[in-house]
Amino acid sequence: MAEHTVTSFDDDLAHISRLVGAMADLAGTMVGDATRALIESDTGLAQRVVSDDVVMDARQRELDNRAITLIAKRQPMADDLRAVVGAIRMAGDLERIGDLAKNIAKRVGAVGQGSMSRDLSHSIDAMAQLVLIQVKGVVEEYSAGDTAALARLRNDDERIDVKYTSVFRELLTYMMEDPRNITACTHLLFCAKNLERIGDHVTNIAENAYYVLTGEQLPAARPKTDETAMPAPAA
Amino acid sequence: MAEHTVTSFDDDLAHISRLVGAMADLAGTMVGDATRALIESDTGLAQRVVSDDVVMDARQRELDNRAITLIAKRQPMADDLRAVVGAIRMAGDLERIGDLAKNIAKRVGAVGQGSMSRDLSHSIDAMAQLVLIQVKGVVEEYSAGDTAALARLRNDDERIDVKYTSVFRELLTYMMEDPRNITACTHLLFCAKNLERIGDHVTNIAENAYYVLTGEQLPAARPKTDETAMPAPAA
Repeated sequence: MAEHTVTSFDDDLAHISRLVGAMADLAGTMVGDATRALIESDTGLAQRVVSDDVVMDARQRELDNRAITLIAKRQPMADDLRAVVGAIRMAGDLERIGDLAKNIAKRVGAVGQGSMSRDLSHSIDAMAQLVLIQVKGVVEEYSAGDTAALARLRNDDERIDVKYTSVFRELLTYMMEDPRNITACTHLLFCAKNLERIGDHVTNIAENAYYVLTGEQLPAARPKTDETAMPAPAA
Repeated sequence: MAEHTVTSFDDDLAHISRLVGAMADLAGTMVGDATRALIESDTGLAQRVVSDDVVMDARQRELDNRAITLIAKRQPMADDLRAVVGAIRMAGDLERIGDLAKNIAKRVGAVGQGSMSRDLSHSIDAMAQLVLIQVKGVVEEYSAGDTAALARLRNDDERIDVKYTSVFRELLTYMMEDPRNITACTHLLFCAKNLERIGDHVTNIAENAYYVLTGEQLPAARPKTDETAMPAPAA
C-alpha cells in the first residue's frame, strides 16, 4: 500500500513535469512565431500566436490544479515538495512568456508593412534569436539535470540586455531622423522590451530549476537592470 | 485535539491573510510614491520605491512558504484550499505590481527634470490616480467580502485602458512635434504602459478574490486589449 502511494506520487509528478515540458515547447514556438510575424509582417502567423496563448493559459491552469491537489493529497516533504512548487513557479514564468509573445504578435498590424529598415529588422531578429536560444535551452538543461548549464544560461541573459540597449538606441535614432517613423518605432520599442522581459523570465526559470535540482539558490543573482532607464543621453 | 488542529489552521490562514493585506498596503504606497516621484522628478522618493520592492519580494517569499507548508501539513479541502491558493495568486499579482512601480521609479532619472509639459503631467497623474484607487480598493473589497464591488472594480479597469490610450496618443504627438522630446517621452510611454499593466493585475486580483469568496468565476471576463496596438493611425 505504501509502495502504491509512492508510485502514484511519482506518476503524478511525472505528469506535471510533462506539462512543464509541453508549456516550454509551446513558449518556444510562440516566441519564434511572434518574431517571424513581426519581421515578415505576417498577420496570419500573428493570429496563430494569439490563439496559442489560450492553449498556454489552459495548460497552466491544469498544471496549477494538479500540483495543488498533489500537495494537498500526498503531503510531499522536502525534495518532492520543492519539485512540485518549482513546477508551479516555472509554469507561471512560461505562461508570462506566452503572454509577452502574444503582445508582440498583437503589435504586428500596428507596426505595419515595410516600415522596418533592413538594419533594424536585422537587429531585432538577432535579439529575438538570442532570446529563443535561452527559452529553448532552459527546460532542456533542466530535464537533463545540468546545473552548470543552468548557471551559465542565467548569466547569458546579460547578452540579451546588451542587445536590447542597442536596439533601443537604434529605434530612438530612427524616430529622431524622421517623425513619420515614430508610431511604428514606438510599437517596436514595446516589442523589444517584451523580448528583454522574456529573457528575465528565462532567468527566473533557470534559478527555479537550479533550486529544484540542488536545493540551493544560485549564488549572487545578477542584478537585472534596464540600462536604457539610466539618466538619458542628450537627445 | 481535532479542535486544536482546526484553530491552528485558522490561525495560519489569518496570518497569511494579514500578509496579503500588508503586501496590498505596500503596493498602494509604491504606486503612489512612484507616480509622485515621476511627476515631481523626485529621485530620492524614486529610490525609496526601489528599496520597498526588496521588502515586497521578501513578503511574497514568506507568504509562499507559509501557504505551501500549510497545504502540505493540513491538507485543506474545498473552501480552505481555495483560500490558500487564492492568497498565493493574489500575492503573485501584488508582487508584480511592486515590480512595475519599481520600474516606473527607475525611469525618473531618465525622464529628467522639466521635460514634462503641464498638460502631460496632468494626464499621467490622472491615469495614476485611477490606478491607485483600483489598487487600494481591491483588497479592501476583498477583506469586506463585497463581491458586487469586486465585480464593479474589475469592470472599472476599462477606464484605465481608455486613459492609457489617450496618454499614448498625447505622447506620440509630443514626440512628433519636437524630436528633442523623444527620449523622455519614450520613457514616459513605458511608465504609462506599466500603469496600465498594474490595472491588469488589479483585475486578476479582483477575479481571484471573487473566486475565493464565492467559489465561482466572475462571468464573461472583459477582454483585455491594448487599443494602441491596433493598426496604427496615420502618423
